[in-house]
Amino acid sequence: MQTVELTEPGVFEHRERDRPDPEPGELLVRTTHVGICGSDVHYYEHGRIGDYVVEDPLILGHESAGEVAAVGEGVTGFEPGDEVTLEPGVPCGECARCRAGEYNLCPDVEFMATPPDHGAFAEYVAWDADFAYRLPENVSTRAGALCEPLSVAIHATRRADVELGDSVLVSGAGPIGMLVGEAVRAAGAGSVLVSDVVGTKLERAEAYGATATVNVADESLAEAVDDFTDGEGVDVVIEASGAAASIESTVDVVRRGGTVVCIGLSAEDEIPVETNEIVDKELDFKGSFRFRNTYDDAVSLLERGAVDVERIIDFEMPMSDLTAAFERATEPDVVKGMVTVGE
Amino acid sequence: MQTVELTEPGVFEHRERDRPDPEPGELLVRTTHVGICGSDVHYYEHGRIGDYVVEDPLILGHESAGEVAAVGEGVTGFEPGDEVTLEPGVPCGECARCRAGEYNLCPDVEFMATPPDHGAFAEYVAWDADFAYRLPENVSTRAGALCEPLSVAIHATRRADVELGDSVLVSGAGPIGMLVGEAVRAAGAGSVLVSDVVGTKLERAEAYGATATVNVADESLAEAVDDFTDGEGVDVVIEASGAAASIESTVDVVRRGGTVVCIGLSAEDEIPVETNEIVDKELDFKGSFRFRNTYDDAVSLLERGAVDVERIIDFEMPMSDLTAAFERATEPDVVKGMVTVGE
Amino acid sequence: MQTVELTEPGVFEHRERDRPDPEPGELLVRTTHVGICGSDVHYYEHGRIGDYVVEDPLILGHESAGEVAAVGEGVTGFEPGDEVTLEPGVPCGECARCRAGEYNLCPDVEFMATPPDHGAFAEYVAWDADFAYRLPENVSTRAGALCEPLSVAIHATRRADVELGDSVLVSGAGPIGMLVGEAVRAAGAGSVLVSDVVGTKLERAEAYGATATVNVADESLAEAVDDFTDGEGVDVVIEASGAAASIESTVDVVRRGGTVVCIGLSAEDEIPVETNEIVDKELDFKGSFRFRNTYDDAVSLLERGAVDVERIIDFEMPMSDLTAAFERATEPDVVKGMVTVGE
Amino acid sequence: MQTVELTEPGVFEHRERDRPDPEPGELLVRTTHVGICGSDVHYYEHGRIGDYVVEDPLILGHESAGEVAAVGEGVTGFEPGDEVTLEPGVPCGECARCRAGEYNLCPDVEFMATPPDHGAFAEYVAWDADFAYRLPENVSTRAGALCEPLSVAIHATRRADVELGDSVLVSGAGPIGMLVGEAVRAAGAGSVLVSDVVGTKLERAEAYGATATVNVADESLAEAVDDFTDGEGVDVVIEASGAAASIESTVDVVRRGGTVVCIGLSAEDEIPVETNEIVDKELDFKGSFRFRNTYDDAVSLLERGAVDVERIIDFEMPMSDLTAAFERATEPDVVKGMVTVGE
Repeated sequence: MQTVELTEPGVFEHRERDRPDPEPGELLVRTTHVGICGSDVHYYEHGRIGDYVVEDPLILGHESAGEVAAVGEGVTGFEPGDEVTLEPGVPCGECARCRAGEYNLCPDVEFMATPPDHGAFAEYVAWDADFAYRLPENVSTRAGALCEPLSVAIHATRRADVELGDSVLVSGAGPIGMLVGEAVRAAGAGSVLVSDVVGTKLERAEAYGATATVNVADESLAEAVDDFTDGEGVDVVIEASGAAASIESTVDVVRRGGTVVCIGLSAEDEIPVETNEIVDKELDFKGSFRFRNTYDDAVSLLERGAVDVERIIDFEMPMSDLTAAFERATEPDVVKGMVTVGE
Repeated sequence: MQTVELTEPGVFEHRERDRPDPEPGELLVRTTHVGICGSDVHYYEHGRIGDYVVEDPLILGHESAGEVAAVGEGVTGFEPGDEVTLEPGVPCGECARCRAGEYNLCPDVEFMATPPDHGAFAEYVAWDADFAYRLPENVSTRAGALCEPLSVAIHATRRADVELGDSVLVSGAGPIGMLVGEAVRAAGAGSVLVSDVVGTKLERAEAYGATATVNVADESLAEAVDDFTDGEGVDVVIEASGAAASIESTVDVVRRGGTVVCIGLSAEDEIPVETNEIVDKELDFKGSFRFRNTYDDAVSLLERGAVDVERIIDFEMPMSDLTAAFERATEPDVVKGMVTVGE
Repeated sequence: MQTVELTEPGVFEHRERDRPDPEPGELLVRTTHVGICGSDVHYYEHGRIGDYVVEDPLILGHESAGEVAAVGEGVTGFEPGDEVTLEPGVPCGECARCRAGEYNLCPDVEFMATPPDHGAFAEYVAWDADFAYRLPENVSTRAGALCEPLSVAIHATRRADVELGDSVLVSGAGPIGMLVGEAVRAAGAGSVLVSDVVGTKLERAEAYGATATVNVADESLAEAVDDFTDGEGVDVVIEASGAAASIESTVDVVRRGGTVVCIGLSAEDEIPVETNEIVDKELDFKGSFRFRNTYDDAVSLLERGAVDVERIIDFEMPMSDLTAAFERATEPDVVKGMVTVGE
Repeated sequence: MQTVELTEPGVFEHRERDRPDPEPGELLVRTTHVGICGSDVHYYEHGRIGDYVVEDPLILGHESAGEVAAVGEGVTGFEPGDEVTLEPGVPCGECARCRAGEYNLCPDVEFMATPPDHGAFAEYVAWDADFAYRLPENVSTRAGALCEPLSVAIHATRRADVELGDSVLVSGAGPIGMLVGEAVRAAGAGSVLVSDVVGTKLERAEAYGATATVNVADESLAEAVDDFTDGEGVDVVIEASGAAASIESTVDVVRRGGTVVCIGLSAEDEIPVETNEIVDKELDFKGSFRFRNTYDDAVSLLERGAVDVERIIDFEMPMSDLTAAFERATEPDVVKGMVTVGE
């Protein structure tokens, strides 16, 4: 089968590998769509993310969907031809975090496209059937591949405990921020303010259902939030930009007793935070890491049309042009690139 | 001013009373719309609900909205002419339940139309401004009056902790069940099954967005839930019918680890419950009583069109015909009657 | 090795079986202590519990501890000679309940002494090392075996969300009720009232730290709770008796907004429950099933002496006298019988 | 009556004021004991805390207890001669935070010894009876006065959601840290590590029940936590020192999925925080501000001897020597000074 592998920063090689056989409990999936994530681009550009270093050729891609090609021993509930989306992390199931239901924090998780585990820019992937989800008829594999970023958004929404009527600031109008906006609306948020520094992204956020937007390159976030909430501060901030200035400002614009959830990783090791504000306002300042127990719900949201994921896609290119696709994905106004695999 | 007062079961008398003066902290509100609640009808028919007995003439009605006519001393944020909806219970603010934020459980609450406290079938009502909520331009007082049953629905949704993607059985397609269906969808429920014994109500529930309905007069609830959830059981049941058979069946049709929330009061003092199922399936079986901290969110849901309350209204009649309105409200296929007050 | 097996109701047979070999990931444990649980006695007397029927000879016993005799392939952190207690249920780790952290609700759990899975009345048991817990020096295997009922108590305490200062009614002074009393005190309960119908058990509960006791054979529970709480009702009821009358009374004696947790299984299929009280008082009425994520904490409570489990033991007999031990365990004033295995 | 008032930084004046009359709903309390809090000392030294500036003479002291001297109109449940402790903050009871049960975040709270509201260094105080708590016979007013810092500790323990068996790092062995150690043990913590830079305080913490201590002036906190938790990190950190280095280190020493609660206010406006660690480890990083709904439970903990507050007292001096008492309270190894008022 065909694969594309990152051999060194900036260099993809097209290779032939043996098609894997599904082990007991696994599905063999013929990949059809893979979204390009910011982390893929980061590996492509830098060859590493923090302590994760690409030492051997690595297949990237972890936002994937396709069609079941074969079913391993002991697997029930799937047949060849079923369209599925794949949850890219398979936890150990036995450690303290797994047993506590926080399997996203499993230290032994196998996660696609994280060295040394390969991802989905390959014609076929063999994957644990417990982490594959059948797509209903009205959900395409193109949309299904985006259950992954949608899961990040759903998990952050749960971490934020968004309630009916809450006012929410979503900081960052990239793919995650855009889908967080969708997820918090689906969870009943009363109003959603989206901030970014790229005007075209904010326009898309508005088309996507933001109640209001603020370009923090030009305008004061504090004033925008004051206007938006009659001076009260928002109930919830979900920080999806990773920008230091955004992270810093979260504690100022959230109301007393409110919640800040950070998803975005920063380029800085340390961010100056007004911790006295966290005490005085008695804030919950939380991290949100990947996702857990979200895929069934992501599929359900797509099935009933409560969330539209495909609108975030800017372009679609075949796996044969992966280098061009990655180059285009780095442009500042691009939200999401989609790669097609196979015929 | 004109009022209508229940003097004995089945007898309304139209009376003149002095228009009240707003005390410090109060608003004087000119009533325009009052919904008829099942409890109003129960007082009308029986002169009592449990230990609450109508001994002196009582003004019924607690689902009300109107226009600010005058503003008491010290009140800020309201002006004559503002349209408002009134939260009908004013708690003490100082007892253990109030301090814990559970003010709906305050033993000293003053609640409209609960003896000896009068309700809103009156041209004017003086009410604590902290429990009045301004209606935005796109929300009429006709809709605003229904923030009360919508609040019941929102509170039950919160008690059930409905999450993105949950499957929910709403038992009972009366006004509360109908609005629970709306509230759980607004809170992200993935699918909603509504049960009742009146076919026309189920048709309305479907038009209202139920994923499916089941007429438990003809069909097996257990089978319907099995079909609906592939044999898993629903994540959440919200019981809004008060029917003994419905309450009994909740623990059978909810999944292991699921949640049942009861709103509906039963005519029976005791209902046989399979408590071993509650243990074995480790259920949360909860009561939900009135509401707390819901009005702002109810208004917000109406403002952004996330919930449509007016569709539950079957008829509208003036306060001058209150007896006829109450008689009509007792018909089995009626969901909600609305009363207009004043010119 | 020697085992004792239930072949029909009331009949234990002593048998020889091959000593098991630990599979990869397993420990071989030489059993030293096994507590007799009410469910063991129920199987002994009736040959079944509900749908679980003893069809083939069954080894009972699931409250066990012993010494590591051999370590299976791939197991780290244990050595022969280590003293351990065994968590008797091994869940699948992959189903929806497992992934949500509610592994006690796994439908595919393998649970000791539940047909067709054998228990611990055997000289050796091979068991998943992930569900074995090393005992510190100051915790004996005799105490360690009782981590099982202590886990039931800890889990119920968590389900009840007992907070610093809470007033708690523990209904039933059997082994579970006795340990619930210990667990809620360890979790900060302000006062603990214990009810039962056996005077000697209540005396033991008092020695064990109950603030007060009530013999509901002679006295009114409602009056006792009124005295105990100045008429407020208790914050929490933990029902560990399974008696129908006790289950019924829980909703009367808990305060508005309070929590009832049922552990005890009833002999009745249905119990009459005042569901209107559950609504009016807005109660949380919850089941608690077995336990999850409790063993580390049970061991920690024993290690620091925060809980004394051995005081519940009435007698200790060797496995060679298992019939006599089971007969004695059925006497009404016995709380816990302990069986020693091996030399 | 006699009072002592801060007229400018470092200057106390002894004055005569009229004894207040209790208003309806109030008690008149003859003060007997008042603890000296760090905030009192800060006002004494600097004349301000942040935006709160002492412009007019201010009576300090908010950790108070005494004897009921007179009972205002409408007050029930108290009689002259009752010993009481006073909760020093009286919230409005009507704002959004109050109604949500978060009355400690009420923007309109009246809080003792916070300009312009006077505190308790006065022979008599008139105070809302709803915020006075009767002390049982076995709790002295000397201990009762310390229900205030104990409340801070209880609230932080709740914010941290300490569970049976949790490992907890308490950062700072001042009065709050010392009482946090007590509160988390009372709530079931399995092990408590206390850090500080003053050796004598750590010795007292050990006598007080800390499982271990670490002097971060000499030793590495990270290593101490590694030893303490076998490399896992603690479940919970409660930061009560306000030291920048301590706040920074919290996210390093807590386990994945763990909780950090900050009580201590820092002298720095901003602290550098590794926010990527908060994301990666999916931490809850929370503030804890004063307390709510804690006094009943604080009294209950003292009544049953679950917590010993008096051991933190280093010295006791009369109000006539208040300047000397405050000077002594500033010494680095002092944990708590107590002031006696009246004969």
